[in-house]
Amino acid sequence: MGLEEKIRSVPDFPKEGILFRDITTLLKDGAALAAAADALYEPFRKERVDRVAAVESRGFIFGAPIALKAGCGFVPIRKPGKLPAAVESAEYELEYGADRIEVHRDAVEPGQRVLLVDDLLATGGTMAAAVRLIVRLGGEVAGIAFLIELADLKGREKLKGHRVHSVIVY
Amino acid sequence: MGLEEKIRSVPDFPKEGILFRDITTLLKDGAALAAAADALYEPFRKERVDRVAAVESRGFIFGAPIALKAGCGFVPIRKPGKLPAAVESAEYELEYGADRIEVHRDAVEPGQRVLLVDDLLATGGTMAAAVRLIVRLGGEVAGIAFLIELADLKGREKLKGHRVHSVIVY
Repeated sequence: MGLEEKIRSVPDFPKEGILFRDITTLLKDGAALAAAADALYEPFRKERVDRVAAVESRGFIFGAPIALKAGCGFVPIRKPGKLPAAVESAEYELEYGADRIEVHRDAVEPGQRVLLVDDLLATGGTMAAAVRLIVRLGGEVAGIAFLIELADLKGREKLKGHRVHSVIVY
Repeated sequence: MGLEEKIRSVPDFPKEGILFRDITTLLKDGAALAAAADALYEPFRKERVDRVAAVESRGFIFGAPIALKAGCGFVPIRKPGKLPAAVESAEYELEYGADRIEVHRDAVEPGQRVLLVDDLLATGGTMAAAVRLIVRLGGEVAGIAFLIELADLKGREKLKGHRVHSVIVY
């Protein structure tokens, strides 16, 4: 299936000059949704994966289905103040300023292999912060899977040393 | 499986006097995650479901897996300003003030049967707004599934006339 054709490109969103890759047109198509989840997980099918982790919100859409495919648990990585128990937190840079993401300290046990999933690899800042969180909990990064990679933004360079898989590359 | 035992109750979060039901301890357990997704979908297994819709962020965790089980597409309902194409929006009341959620106008076609999914039924305000959005797009609500229902808050009354299923009731 041509998954790329299912993605809608919206010019000037969220601001002028940005071409936004809208996955909602893919998500609403049942066959495309299933094919995308399969394609994300495929390279890791034979790996040991103990947890799948994803950053809110869009990361959750593919993170949870892939955890079910892998037969393991799912770890939500969230914006600050959303998780009720003890957390680790990591900062990442934005165009102007910085933001933070958090994970529960008991979400991953030392030595567990964690597959990270997100819909989009842009500058890679958020995913690099997610990787730091998993490593700080003692987890090993089994791999990182993206539905879309915007290659021009060189996000892959921030994830060096990890196995990075992208289904669609622009 | 005793799914209720997998949920962690955290007192005084997000503020004093609130007992927060934390599903992350269930999510990180692969068998519990799978059992919860099955239990959410079970009553609708024989129904015609053309789309599964869920409100960000935690709703996405079970929404997408249930769309895959139903073999249909997934519709994300989001906070304002996140969706790039034409949207319908609906307001709902908070304790102080109001908030809004949005859905793409092309997310559901008239006559399609939509199953709504969320992790928690509290006051029901958000889900009632999600129902209004689906109906405004011409969709029919096939049912509404929650992992947890806080029965004291009487959220079910805001969803009258719809088939509401809760896996765990407190």
